[in-house]
Amino acid sequence: MSDSSKTKQQVFAFEEGDGKNKKLLGGKGANLCEMTQIGLNVPPGFVISTEACLNYLATPHNGLPRELLDAIHAEMKVLETKTGKRFGDAKKPLLVSVRSGSAMSMPGMMDTILNLGLNEQTLAGEIAQTGDARFGYDTYRRFIQLFGKIALGVPDELFDKEMNLVKQNRGIKEDLALNADDLKEICAHFLRVVQEQTGKPFPTDPYEQLDLSVKAVFDSWMGKRAVDYRREFRITPDMANGTAVNICTMVFGNRGNDSATGVGFTRNPATGENHLYGEYLVNAQGEDVVAGIRTPKPLDYMAKEMPDLFRQLQELRAKLEAHYHEVQDFEFTIERGTLYCLQTRNGKMNTTAMVRSSVEMEKEGLVTRKQALLRIAPESLAQMLFPRLDPNAGATPLAKGLPASPGATSGHAIFDADRAEEQGKAGKPVILVREETKPEDIHGFFASRGILTSRGGKTSHAAVVARGMGKPCVAGAEGIEVNVTLRQATIGETVINEGDIITIDGTTGMVYLGVVATLEAEITPELNVLLGWADQEARLAVMANADTPDDARRALHLGAKGIGLCRTERMFNASDRLPIVLEMIIAEDRVQRQQALDRLLLIQRSDFKGLLKTMAGLPVTIRLLDPPIHEFLPAEQQLIREIAELQHLYKTASGMQILSSTLELLQGEELNSSNAAQIRTSTIDAHIVELAIGKKQAILKKVRALHEVNPMLGHRGVRLGITFPEIYIMQIRALAEATVECVKEGLDVHPEIMVPQVCTSAELRYVKNYVEQTIADVEKSTGIRAKIKFGTMMEVVRACVRADSLATEAEFFSFGTNDLTQATFSFSREDAENKFLPAYNEKDVLHDNPFEVLDTQGVGRLMKLAIEGGRASRPNLKIGICGEHGGHPASIRFCHQIGLNYVSCSAPRVPIARLAAAHAKLSEG
Amino acid sequence: MSDSSKTKQQVFAFEEGDGKNKKLLGGKGANLCEMTQIGLNVPPGFVISTEACLNYLATPHNGLPRELLDAIHAEMKVLETKTGKRFGDAKKPLLVSVRSGSAMSMPGMMDTILNLGLNEQTLAGEIAQTGDARFGYDTYRRFIQLFGKIALGVPDELFDKEMNLVKQNRGIKEDLALNADDLKEICAHFLRVVQEQTGKPFPTDPYEQLDLSVKAVFDSWMGKRAVDYRREFRITPDMANGTAVNICTMVFGNRGNDSATGVGFTRNPATGENHLYGEYLVNAQGEDVVAGIRTPKPLDYMAKEMPDLFRQLQELRAKLEAHYHEVQDFEFTIERGTLYCLQTRNGKMNTTAMVRSSVEMEKEGLVTRKQALLRIAPESLAQMLFPRLDPNAGATPLAKGLPASPGATSGHAIFDADRAEEQGKAGKPVILVREETKPEDIHGFFASRGILTSRGGKTSHAAVVARGMGKPCVAGAEGIEVNVTLRQATIGETVINEGDIITIDGTTGMVYLGVVATLEAEITPELNVLLGWADQEARLAVMANADTPDDARRALHLGAKGIGLCRTERMFNASDRLPIVLEMIIAEDRVQRQQALDRLLLIQRSDFKGLLKTMAGLPVTIRLLDPPIHEFLPAEQQLIREIAELQHLYKTASGMQILSSTLELLQGEELNSSNAAQIRTSTIDAHIVELAIGKKQAILKKVRALHEVNPMLGHRGVRLGITFPEIYIMQIRALAEATVECVKEGLDVHPEIMVPQVCTSAELRYVKNYVEQTIADVEKSTGIRAKIKFGTMMEVVRACVRADSLATEAEFFSFGTNDLTQATFSFSREDAENKFLPAYNEKDVLHDNPFEVLDTQGVGRLMKLAIEGGRASRPNLKIGICGEHGGHPASIRFCHQIGLNYVSCSAPRVPIARLAAAHAKLSEG
Repeated sequence: MSDSSKTKQQVFAFEEGDGKNKKLLGGKGANLCEMTQIGLNVPPGFVISTEACLNYLATPHNGLPRELLDAIHAEMKVLETKTGKRFGDAKKPLLVSVRSGSAMSMPGMMDTILNLGLNEQTLAGEIAQTGDARFGYDTYRRFIQLFGKIALGVPDELFDKEMNLVKQNRGIKEDLALNADDLKEICAHFLRVVQEQTGKPFPTDPYEQLDLSVKAVFDSWMGKRAVDYRREFRITPDMANGTAVNICTMVFGNRGNDSATGVGFTRNPATGENHLYGEYLVNAQGEDVVAGIRTPKPLDYMAKEMPDLFRQLQELRAKLEAHYHEVQDFEFTIERGTLYCLQTRNGKMNTTAMVRSSVEMEKEGLVTRKQALLRIAPESLAQMLFPRLDPNAGATPLAKGLPASPGATSGHAIFDADRAEEQGKAGKPVILVREETKPEDIHGFFASRGILTSRGGKTSHAAVVARGMGKPCVAGAEGIEVNVTLRQATIGETVINEGDIITIDGTTGMVYLGVVATLEAEITPELNVLLGWADQEARLAVMANADTPDDARRALHLGAKGIGLCRTERMFNASDRLPIVLEMIIAEDRVQRQQALDRLLLIQRSDFKGLLKTMAGLPVTIRLLDPPIHEFLPAEQQLIREIAELQHLYKTASGMQILSSTLELLQGEELNSSNAAQIRTSTIDAHIVELAIGKKQAILKKVRALHEVNPMLGHRGVRLGITFPEIYIMQIRALAEATVECVKEGLDVHPEIMVPQVCTSAELRYVKNYVEQTIADVEKSTGIRAKIKFGTMMEVVRACVRADSLATEAEFFSFGTNDLTQATFSFSREDAENKFLPAYNEKDVLHDNPFEVLDTQGVGRLMKLAIEGGRASRPNLKIGICGEHGGHPASIRFCHQIGLNYVSCSAPRVPIARLAAAHAKLSEG
Repeated sequence: MSDSSKTKQQVFAFEEGDGKNKKLLGGKGANLCEMTQIGLNVPPGFVISTEACLNYLATPHNGLPRELLDAIHAEMKVLETKTGKRFGDAKKPLLVSVRSGSAMSMPGMMDTILNLGLNEQTLAGEIAQTGDARFGYDTYRRFIQLFGKIALGVPDELFDKEMNLVKQNRGIKEDLALNADDLKEICAHFLRVVQEQTGKPFPTDPYEQLDLSVKAVFDSWMGKRAVDYRREFRITPDMANGTAVNICTMVFGNRGNDSATGVGFTRNPATGENHLYGEYLVNAQGEDVVAGIRTPKPLDYMAKEMPDLFRQLQELRAKLEAHYHEVQDFEFTIERGTLYCLQTRNGKMNTTAMVRSSVEMEKEGLVTRKQALLRIAPESLAQMLFPRLDPNAGATPLAKGLPASPGATSGHAIFDADRAEEQGKAGKPVILVREETKPEDIHGFFASRGILTSRGGKTSHAAVVARGMGKPCVAGAEGIEVNVTLRQATIGETVINEGDIITIDGTTGMVYLGVVATLEAEITPELNVLLGWADQEARLAVMANADTPDDARRALHLGAKGIGLCRTERMFNASDRLPIVLEMIIAEDRVQRQQALDRLLLIQRSDFKGLLKTMAGLPVTIRLLDPPIHEFLPAEQQLIREIAELQHLYKTASGMQILSSTLELLQGEELNSSNAAQIRTSTIDAHIVELAIGKKQAILKKVRALHEVNPMLGHRGVRLGITFPEIYIMQIRALAEATVECVKEGLDVHPEIMVPQVCTSAELRYVKNYVEQTIADVEKSTGIRAKIKFGTMMEVVRACVRADSLATEAEFFSFGTNDLTQATFSFSREDAENKFLPAYNEKDVLHDNPFEVLDTQGVGRLMKLAIEGGRASRPNLKIGICGEHGGHPASIRFCHQIGLNYVSCSAPRVPIARLAAAHAKLSEG
């Protein structure tokens, strides 16, 4: 390849660049090319490719390669021809912007320089040409500051300080109040600052300015902020590699009152409403809007202020959606009555807006159903399922700002990003409170639950970034004065010190002191439509983990197709049942034990009946008792303490007044009712204390007898079922009787029994025997034969390896990936997450926490083995997952790929799982 | 197939049966056929096949099928022709024995009837023919008793009672003192007993006797004893199915002083010496020898007593070994100067004898090396490696019996088999003490560590069975009087009550009260030869698990080809080191911690050097620290108690005398030397107590901080190595420096580093970095680069699944099947073996304890996956096993089959593993 063709590849005019090739031209560059080519009014310009960037970064050098410079300069000549201006010309000077742009959208990560080409001569030309000295010096001082900061590395604060000094001297608060002379003086100070800081005068040659700027943009790709962002969001080189540079003719929104600059969304990014949305500032440059220095006007206002231009804007909006089939977030500038479109990209919206626009755009024919589904990340639905403030909480807001990113949250107010990161990593809920945020604050966003700023609008940095992350944000709460040095914020008389708890509501813009109660979110009609489409596409059924009829109703409301896991031990844990369970455990003989079991039977039967009735027509999977029985007993230390306390009492007690804490201790005991009455009178005799001590000692003895070294791998699940059959038999009988009662009521119920912790088919055979005998017994007494499916949890490694054998007994498998992950890694979750997983993540020994993200390469391989084995023995075997992973989109995709029939997750995640199941199917290829 | 041909298949004369077809003819029957066909003097007879037995058992009926009876009776006619006698004939009556015999040797399990064909008429004929009335009645009373018991179900005791009554009346102790009249009277009593018990007269028709006997033998196959035995020894139908019946002409060893009966071993079954060994009784029937009722004479005595017959016996011995290529255990009878061989089978010998005879028979050309190796069960070598009594223990024997099965052991004396079984299952060491044992006692043998009898010889039931099981046995200790009713044994003045601990030495025949100290066994020269052959055959190398130079020397002596596992934590546990480890753990800062580590470094380096030197030329695999560090700390409860005690002391202490227990408590603390001096004076001031309390509280705090819910799955192994790198780095440095020191001394050392608990290759990369840096550091200061292999334990399931990736970092794998089994089953060994594994075994949910017998279907499948994966990445990957299973023959065979390179086991099991490795290769087929 010749040098020239190689160079040719590196620079593209907007008219010639391939609008689809984001990898080569960056997102922004490709976009500018595409916009130009579809006939939008884009200021002329060209793109320096990412390839040129990588080429530059890969070679040791002091500057840009000669060939690249030649190509850039040649394109500048073309620009001069197109605009009729000349770069560095004193009369009609060409000014350009230099912007970065990589293949992935990385908002605020890369640096931008505006007004490049200005020096004393061209400035004079600008002023002569426009007759506006104030505009000229304002533009110049902006350029010196940006160029100084980005290309020459001069600290921003030094410029701010000079500007503030001048404003102070003039007694001025607003930038707009500065006149031409003020700004000229400021320019002089800025040039001096550059001379002082760099030891050299500010470069006056426009080409030198251009070359240094391109180099600075390239270098910024490897800057700390950019590298951090890529790491945080896992942007790998195959996704984006290097940044392109976009050189674009400057147009000016600050050339008087017929000029303006603004940003727009083709639909409302907070609600999805099909209505042009955005903000603009008259006589300003774009950075003024984004940085939130002046508070802009909503675009609706423009209909009155500049009706013709507003009509042009509406046309632009229609063109953008028709071309991109996606909501667009665009920037525009009006220079002396001419509308330019500077940039457009897919709009970042909250999920409510995404869902609404998906459903509406599908109806408008702008997108297909598949597109409508795929443009919404399943996990993002969590935002809609977030809690909102309880309107009945009656909290009085402390301040009001803009509702910049919806959702409500509480946390400790922290006033800078570093400390927010520190506190967030320490596990504290944090709300980052800033006057305004900057790209440098990004690590503080990651660590915070929500963002509160006192300046800036709904398209300010804080608002855009928070929405992208799905975190609540209140922006521009102007009543709040933030003082970082004192580490406090004041609202009138009220002072928020760092660490005080506040609540923000990004849906309303309200800020509260302390914690405010929240309510569950409701499902919007649009979400219901969308999830209906999702169900039509998905192959995986979505079931819910639910332990009570209430849980089941909620799951049903959220679209669950059955209950994939009912943890019966949760029924035992309720406060009215635990005493009976305790009695069963410490029973001295079979009779006592059976009495307790008989009482539990009635309770479980009614629980099961409630579940079956609620889910009539759908499967209800009942998992037999899983945890080791010592989990139902109090802790050893607590018992020892209580016994000591009671013994002390015993030594001194005789019909006397007793301490209320001790009274509680005795009430906790199920003593008989006459004793209870005695306790209520707060007097007590030694005999009752003696009884209580005896009972506690019996429990303590049992606690010690049942102690296990590794309870996770201990006497639990089916092992209990085989060694103490009476518990499982009670549960099976309760289910069989509940089923028969439902059948008698004419209900179509689908109970299933699932055995936990199975490692060999002999265990299943053993329990299956109980099931068959119990069903036969119940049939004998009721005349109705309960039809109950029989299956097994797959949560022991050996079960996966021996799946072929297990499937000869089991009609379904359900992967318990929580326990399976523990066994596969030999990680006890409680110990791992406290002791070494954080270090493993930090040192990159493990990228993810395998308890959150399913380990497809390890655990997943065992699952595949199990599926192969199971279906080899029983081709129509039903297979699902009921571990926590069953609600996570990436894991759901994996479950789809390996051929599961269903996933079961907690009720609130059911909608996410339904959409994820559709995605898994639709992205099959 | 016609009825006659079907029947023909079921009955075979000794001349026609296939001597190799044990499944059809049973071991004994095939053997009789074979003996007959190779020209030994076997009394004429025939075999009823196992097929006939199964056919009988499978059909509902009241007796034997007609066709079978016809075939049997036809063969009887043939016998009459051969012997010139007639069945039921009053003049020359034919008498036969009826014996069971299945394909597997099940000694004493099945029933036998002798002298069948006797009734009043034939008895008269016998007496007339022999002129010996005493012999006649003696034979008759034996027949009535055996037939009564076996075919008619009359309790044995009833006959014994009658016989004792007569003996009492006559004032006679020995059976031999009974004269013809006495015996005649006994016969009459016996016949009456049968009439009383069965309600019918004793059957006098010889054919009726024959038919009932065959039926009884068939039925005994499904008797409780036989079924129990088959279950215990896992004898499945493909190994033995049904019993054959052998009908053989009677010959009589009790026809006077030119008659005898005896049993012989072609070599000494206790030592293997190439010398005819056995016992005989003149004028007796075979059962007298086996039952141990009369004490027989050694065969050597026969050389003087019956020199010609002894010469015939020597010829028989030579013929047997030449034909069978195996030591034979044979029964013979001499009837009036003619030697008959009644039975021969492979001799059950102890292992020492097996090993010696293997080596000698190979030299004599009787067996090949392969045969010599394969005839010894590897596990049986444990007998030779058993401890023996310490000759310096100075214990005085209480009694002396016959050394019937070698080895020494201690246990609680228990006087019946049922109770022995009960106590043994409860985990108590038991020695079964009986007057003599019977087949009914078999369950007591299984449960006991050793057997002691007061009657019977070295071929008595007790001796034969104990030798077969490899359990120590002292037989015929006549000084002991056993009283089952009182549950005690007396030896002169001494009384052993049930439950008292005794020690027996089956090698010397001595019996001791209490526990006597034991010494390790030594390896015989023959075993050395045999194991040398084994090493030549085996493909698997056998290494040892050894933690100290002493262990290593022992392993080397037993033939280990290196150290496959050195558990470095054991080095930390020694009492002089634990305080330093404690210091390291509770160190408040890096400096303190490093000081402790520096001291440990010196110790570990010297440990490692010792190991490397001992094993020069062979690999030494050092496993980095594995257990969680809290294992090095005292228990929480103990600390709380100690602190309370010290605090009590503190409240009252001031230069006063202190309790010696508290003194100990303070000495346990590493206080400085002046304090220590003060402690030694037994006076103490409050300040020192304060110091000790402070230190204990620091440890308690650490204990609590390090507490884990499931330590087995917790912060251990490589997880510690990554979170606290300094410990691993210290160990690696110690090994690198030790290696360099050895190299400087000119030694050829092969150190290997093995990382425990690995689940991902990133962990290995992390530790490999330490290794590379440390080796480089040590090279920098010494100029020598340590060559250390780097590998990983395979004990986490995920490691097996991700073996391909691990093998990119690891040069070797070592399966830790203890932990891998725990993770595969989700069984915590400590909890499982205490809480539910016994029930699982009992209810047959799991046949074996997977911690003892490698679970080839579950754990084994993961191992296969790992081997495939590992070798796919690194074809020359070295793979071994260092879990407990590495020393067990069945698991070693599996390891051979799946392609491991080595097994590593505890030193005492190295010889077993070497032989097992050879077996695995030789039985490849």
